[in-house]
Amino acid sequence: MLLVDDLVNPAVLEHANTGARIVHVGKRGGCKSTPQAFIEKLMVSETLAGEHVVRLKGGDPFIFGRGGEEIEALREAGIEASVINGITSGLAGLTSLNTPLTHRNHAHGVVFITGHAKPGDAGTDWRQLAQTAHDAKLTLVIYMGISGSEHIQQELLHGLPASTPAVVIQNASLPTQRHATTTLGELRHTIEREQLASPSIIVIGDVVRGVQALQQHPPASAARA
Amino acid sequence: MLLVDDLVNPAVLEHANTGARIVHVGKRGGCKSTPQAFIEKLMVSETLAGEHVVRLKGGDPFIFGRGGEEIEALREAGIEASVINGITSGLAGLTSLNTPLTHRNHAHGVVFITGHAKPGDAGTDWRQLAQTAHDAKLTLVIYMGISGSEHIQQELLHGLPASTPAVVIQNASLPTQRHATTTLGELRHTIEREQLASPSIIVIGDVVRGVQALQQHPPASAARA
Repeated sequence: MLLVDDLVNPAVLEHANTGARIVHVGKRGGCKSTPQAFIEKLMVSETLAGEHVVRLKGGDPFIFGRGGEEIEALREAGIEASVINGITSGLAGLTSLNTPLTHRNHAHGVVFITGHAKPGDAGTDWRQLAQTAHDAKLTLVIYMGISGSEHIQQELLHGLPASTPAVVIQNASLPTQRHATTTLGELRHTIEREQLASPSIIVIGDVVRGVQALQQHPPASAARA
Repeated sequence: MLLVDDLVNPAVLEHANTGARIVHVGKRGGCKSTPQAFIEKLMVSETLAGEHVVRLKGGDPFIFGRGGEEIEALREAGIEASVINGITSGLAGLTSLNTPLTHRNHAHGVVFITGHAKPGDAGTDWRQLAQTAHDAKLTLVIYMGISGSEHIQQELLHGLPASTPAVVIQNASLPTQRHATTTLGELRHTIEREQLASPSIIVIGDVVRGVQALQQHPPASAARA
């Protein structure tokens, strides 16, 4: 039995066992969204009924993929599960633009953070995060940040220069991927002008200069690295 | 032509074209280490000589993998390259322990950071990072942190409670992987007692409670999530 999210490429399902039941439990795009609690209950009840349950997601289930909640639900029911990493959009997006998230000379680390915390939670202190990212040379990768991008930009500007390079990548790793390079100071303006929408990741930091260099100097010959 | 790092599983090479030249350019383990500049020159010269060059690494080349430097060297020589993501040890390690790096209730994000910056660079302000990780609920994943772990621990304790759960995972994703759970306050002591050595990742944050829960309640039946 396959429980399949909306962001999973349909071509993946061609590899499924022909006898497998395929259930689409996506949370976006369709007319109805499947509540997380329902998915967890289904995983538990079908496994206890003797089914071999495979949960298919886009990206990495343990990076903003709610894999932690699903593992907890299974564990509470005494069910063993194994999780296989995928490529999270924060990695896939910048890689597709041939640009690293860390670099010995420019970035000593990277922060993956949600721009959209659970309702009711205290919001992220973006000013403090910006100061730390600046001082410790960290690339910022913001998931689900489009709707809050005006607020995030204004707050980050208290700790990072307006000239800090940024890129917004919509539909990272999908055939419909598109992106726009900008700066922190022009972030919101660029999102509006280019009509960039969810799902997008926003990457802010000096490493993004690599994307810009690429666009200015299109390479001549071909190799793989 | 394949340029292969030491951390690459030899089984991967069985998939190589039988006519391919395989060159081991690892930087650890052997009697001699291959300088990074030599590897970059080799990639450029062989590509310009008409070879199809594949650079094989363990983990993800754009997360502490020096992929950024190699892409720059190629770009300067006018050579086009494409990079394929791998699973970086910071993801593979905690996933193998069935534990998420982010969690809606416990961690709004994750920081991947090197414990071992380039010689001559100003060191990371671990106190500031600890405060930000605490306030913004970020999981800390420290690469190459074993040799500096005493200093890192002492500094992080200024911003995070000594009781913060931690886990050290040596040889993440390899058959020789082993780990020890601990707390930030007992980190150095645990590394010494368990003789944990490089390459290891250190994960610090509330999500690590998931590893501990797993060890206390071994699951009963089997499924895949």
